[in-house]
Amino acid sequence: MEQGRLDFSCDYLEGAHDRILRRLVDTNLEKMAGYGFDPISQSATRRIREACERPGAEIQFLEGGTQANEIMISCLLEPWQGVIAATSGHVSVHEAGAIEAGGHKVLELPGQHGKLEASQIQSCMEAFRSDSNHEHMVEPGLVYISQPTEYGTLYSKAELEALSRACHENALKLYCDGARLAYALASPENDASLSDLSRLCDAFYIGGTKCGALIGEAAVVPDPKLIPHFFTRIKQHGALLAKGRLLGTQFDELFKDGLYFEIGKKAVAQARRIEERLEKRGIPLLFKSPTNQVFFIISRQKMEELGRKVAYSFWEWRGNDAVVRLSTSWATRDEDVEALLKLL
Amino acid sequence: MEQGRLDFSCDYLEGAHDRILRRLVDTNLEKMAGYGFDPISQSATRRIREACERPGAEIQFLEGGTQANEIMISCLLEPWQGVIAATSGHVSVHEAGAIEAGGHKVLELPGQHGKLEASQIQSCMEAFRSDSNHEHMVEPGLVYISQPTEYGTLYSKAELEALSRACHENALKLYCDGARLAYALASPENDASLSDLSRLCDAFYIGGTKCGALIGEAAVVPDPKLIPHFFTRIKQHGALLAKGRLLGTQFDELFKDGLYFEIGKKAVAQARRIEERLEKRGIPLLFKSPTNQVFFIISRQKMEELGRKVAYSFWEWRGNDAVVRLSTSWATRDEDVEALLKLL
Amino acid sequence: MEQGRLDFSCDYLEGAHDRILRRLVDTNLEKMAGYGFDPISQSATRRIREACERPGAEIQFLEGGTQANEIMISCLLEPWQGVIAATSGHVSVHEAGAIEAGGHKVLELPGQHGKLEASQIQSCMEAFRSDSNHEHMVEPGLVYISQPTEYGTLYSKAELEALSRACHENALKLYCDGARLAYALASPENDASLSDLSRLCDAFYIGGTKCGALIGEAAVVPDPKLIPHFFTRIKQHGALLAKGRLLGTQFDELFKDGLYFEIGKKAVAQARRIEERLEKRGIPLLFKSPTNQVFFIISRQKMEELGRKVAYSFWEWRGNDAVVRLSTSWATRDEDVEALLKLL
Amino acid sequence: MEQGRLDFSCDYLEGAHDRILRRLVDTNLEKMAGYGFDPISQSATRRIREACERPGAEIQFLEGGTQANEIMISCLLEPWQGVIAATSGHVSVHEAGAIEAGGHKVLELPGQHGKLEASQIQSCMEAFRSDSNHEHMVEPGLVYISQPTEYGTLYSKAELEALSRACHENALKLYCDGARLAYALASPENDASLSDLSRLCDAFYIGGTKCGALIGEAAVVPDPKLIPHFFTRIKQHGALLAKGRLLGTQFDELFKDGLYFEIGKKAVAQARRIEERLEKRGIPLLFKSPTNQVFFIISRQKMEELGRKVAYSFWEWRGNDAVVRLSTSWATRDEDVEALLKLL
Repeated sequence: MEQGRLDFSCDYLEGAHDRILRRLVDTNLEKMAGYGFDPISQSATRRIREACERPGAEIQFLEGGTQANEIMISCLLEPWQGVIAATSGHVSVHEAGAIEAGGHKVLELPGQHGKLEASQIQSCMEAFRSDSNHEHMVEPGLVYISQPTEYGTLYSKAELEALSRACHENALKLYCDGARLAYALASPENDASLSDLSRLCDAFYIGGTKCGALIGEAAVVPDPKLIPHFFTRIKQHGALLAKGRLLGTQFDELFKDGLYFEIGKKAVAQARRIEERLEKRGIPLLFKSPTNQVFFIISRQKMEELGRKVAYSFWEWRGNDAVVRLSTSWATRDEDVEALLKLL
Repeated sequence: MEQGRLDFSCDYLEGAHDRILRRLVDTNLEKMAGYGFDPISQSATRRIREACERPGAEIQFLEGGTQANEIMISCLLEPWQGVIAATSGHVSVHEAGAIEAGGHKVLELPGQHGKLEASQIQSCMEAFRSDSNHEHMVEPGLVYISQPTEYGTLYSKAELEALSRACHENALKLYCDGARLAYALASPENDASLSDLSRLCDAFYIGGTKCGALIGEAAVVPDPKLIPHFFTRIKQHGALLAKGRLLGTQFDELFKDGLYFEIGKKAVAQARRIEERLEKRGIPLLFKSPTNQVFFIISRQKMEELGRKVAYSFWEWRGNDAVVRLSTSWATRDEDVEALLKLL
Repeated sequence: MEQGRLDFSCDYLEGAHDRILRRLVDTNLEKMAGYGFDPISQSATRRIREACERPGAEIQFLEGGTQANEIMISCLLEPWQGVIAATSGHVSVHEAGAIEAGGHKVLELPGQHGKLEASQIQSCMEAFRSDSNHEHMVEPGLVYISQPTEYGTLYSKAELEALSRACHENALKLYCDGARLAYALASPENDASLSDLSRLCDAFYIGGTKCGALIGEAAVVPDPKLIPHFFTRIKQHGALLAKGRLLGTQFDELFKDGLYFEIGKKAVAQARRIEERLEKRGIPLLFKSPTNQVFFIISRQKMEELGRKVAYSFWEWRGNDAVVRLSTSWATRDEDVEALLKLL
Repeated sequence: MEQGRLDFSCDYLEGAHDRILRRLVDTNLEKMAGYGFDPISQSATRRIREACERPGAEIQFLEGGTQANEIMISCLLEPWQGVIAATSGHVSVHEAGAIEAGGHKVLELPGQHGKLEASQIQSCMEAFRSDSNHEHMVEPGLVYISQPTEYGTLYSKAELEALSRACHENALKLYCDGARLAYALASPENDASLSDLSRLCDAFYIGGTKCGALIGEAAVVPDPKLIPHFFTRIKQHGALLAKGRLLGTQFDELFKDGLYFEIGKKAVAQARRIEERLEKRGIPLLFKSPTNQVFFIISRQKMEELGRKVAYSFWEWRGNDAVVRLSTSWATRDEDVEALLKLL
């Protein structure tokens, strides 16, 4: 962000994809109904239903990821239930207690680079049921995952199927945070489509903010009966925009001509180039990433040197070494990647 | 909204002022920090502080009016307190219980076309204190007003001073919902400036959504100590945007070169023209409005006739007659007003 | 409470019926399971189910009326719903905002000496449904009544049937606060039995604290499916007693040999004697009470004179006159009534 | 609980100390003010203040431990804060999510047989402050400990002083759950007095239910300014008893003539006898307990054998072995201990 300094600190540094801005300009003075009843939002809804192969799904547009998680999770849980999440899950750490402020406990399980396994869900539920005090405890009601995870890792379709089965066999719902979903869908390693998510999850959201939109996340509830009065609850949470067209426009463009499926591809390729350079330079990766985030391990001194020229995201200490994250985005320029590669 | 039909149903039918869109386009690919730490949001903050003559005020940008009300009121109230509002107040009726979902009772007092009087506050607090059971009751902690009110009426500076005095003498905070504040500031009848609001209220918000912005309301807390950790609480409520620049841009433009003080003027003048025509035609007004909303009383049949050509907002029944509202906005075209006048 | 001064200020001045204390003493050192799984609580449950003619009803014992109302109402409402109550309802005024702290709005309707009418419910729901903004409003989900009401008035069986019908035809639940239910059941004017309440209400509680118990209210849910995981929710609200036997003992005794149906009779008869004396003395009653509370209207001076000799409960001002309440209870001694009559 | 079977499963199997029952009987028909304003509750308040050497402390009587924890913690925390507790803490596991239902996250740290160390608090707070994202995270606001802990272990006075210092140097409050406090005070190993707790903690409660009372916990707030409007908040949580005398009586007796300091002694001595027998028989203890709970490790088969004759509490699996808990209480008879010893 500083003049002349490269910035790979996150994937929400720029505004919106050019097409979105143009559409906002083109439709600006058209009079449209409020609260999402405008024709653009209605069109966006249709496009997303189609992309998900779920013509009957409920689609609602929200403003941000924490908001989407908090509203959907609280709508999916019963008052006596909690949500299972990886210790590194966004809802576990970085939402300032939004889930608890809504009345629900986050039941943390250790993740493997952000991922949970079906067997963990199974064990957790067996332990819960066999505990003679379980009626004095928080009943798990939902499993929260993210695709890609906070580490940029991916669940395979088979893993999602196993998770979905483990959830539904244990009367749990499965919810997926798709803040960076475009980067999952753009990954050569990904085999889980939007249609798969719609089939396997009880609810999820399609991230806009980090994937080319100015603002917005699209909540998808494949079976609308799961969240009755969703509109009113969004209003009650203060999340209903009078000018819903703003959100509708983001997603109508992102889902027109397959833009959402393309928009992350370059970022993923750029991240691979960065990883390759790190490996060539003998800098250990935390793991091989399939998406737009790259995690590697360097000494504190090297990190500080790097920081003079490149904005990055510090992740955590590993003894004396640091885990550092670099992110690309749909808007990352090749020349910036070139400049970065020279510095590594 | 229908083809060929005039639409005076509300003041959020269009997008944003042209300058805002242009600024979004011009700055789109600049990399900026998230969460409101970008230079545009910082500039917007400075401009609003200056317009309020409060260099130390805390300014935070939020997405909508219900959200702003819910967050600020819950941040200003103690857990055992409730909020006094007019029966017609937005928080009393049209926020789907957001205030109660946050744990607080709305204590309704009858309003006069949306306005509360200082003497009502005084009486209410005397009754509360003299009730021997008051420790079993909800303690009023804050008075909610709107400027202009839901009826478009205005508090004069003297009325605001009296309310502020009544509040502070009774250990109440005073909060003002400024969803349509630009139309108050643009009214020839208004004598309460932003500086006055900053001096007399403990918190308020400056409406963007209905006043020329695509999205956004600017929360103003003249004395920041009143809401500690406001940033974290906004996050906890799911209201913190990663791309805060979107909100900052709205207000940086609205408060550059006095745009916010100009943007409502034409709408107010247009509303006066509509009122004059109604009076000339002998259609009774509910009251003379000082801002961009016009309320009048017609028979059900006349209303239905009107509705074939103009979208309006039905307000309430008065016996067999209807109270109908027409709204202009910063974007209402003169030719549409002309066309409307011919129909009345 | 002061030495030598009569006290008719309320109906919870004394401890418990002698039989309850004796039972506590007799069973004190028996080892029993906690949390209501003890044999005494189980027996109390059976007796109440029998008295209600509902062998499958869920019975849970709680500690007080506000707690019972708050827990049951929040368990019966959906998160987007509110509770309809009379303006004078206990939940509307005297529970320190417990319902709102649980996230729900109290939607107040004017009562007639504490009573609501079926037609009010019908009108209220018609108005709600016909409001084009109703999805931005709190949906009524439940009607709160009390039997007897806060004024000691009674719903007849026909009135309850009409209310129940109006509720169920409008997808509302009906909930009855029975804090003083023994005085209703003991009234010669009452024709609504426990069995009727069980048939007509979705949930109610049988008051112990004001009806001869040291502590406790018995929550009755005729169809247990209406409140799943009730036990866990009681725990979550901090209302589950480790020594549940304490509560069980109250109700096992109250429902043994019909004690609960007898315990209020004397109090009601005493209240009638007080009313007769007031009428004889030309002191206007607020209305003829069918239960253990007596409301009458006297000047401020007379009230102050009375207060030197008798503790009463001040109700409200009627112009310059005061509405004063006198209560008898299951433990009121005839000699105290005699002494009171001499003073009136 | 079954006929003829010994029961050492917990310490709330019996009713109340004989003196408490006698006092209830003796004062039963005295008319007393409600809501804790009765003379017995006032006397109990004075006695507890004296025992704590805190004449200005606020004392309020509550019904149970989960309720006391939930109310006091939510009153001590700001809305954006969470509570640090050991993973085994009662608030972490066995309160059905009551803390989260009140809006707050429980931030778990690993305990050593239920105990937290000052250094853990220090490290936790340093990590929090140095995290650049900490404004997106839940701020720790309070440390929850229990004395004795859920494992029956004790904090020494020095440990409490270190914890208190670590808390206050890090702007944390210190709260102590004293559900079994009488067994701590009765332990020969204890050196932390009620006065010490009052000096070192910001709030705590003195357990009644497990320590000889029928019901009740006494909340102690050494500096009442820390919880303004505590009475109203107790009411709002549904925890205010109309017949407060019931709770006052428990504590007036427990704190008369030092009963509370004596009542746990026999139980602690009995627990030591059980431990000695276990050691003599070569059955490994989980650790040497200083209070009324005994934890030991046996095979599943031995546990099942034991279970035919004695009710115990299963704690957890250690590989194929079981950790089993036996509890004595103020009411445990020597003959039952003798019988138990023969079985071990």
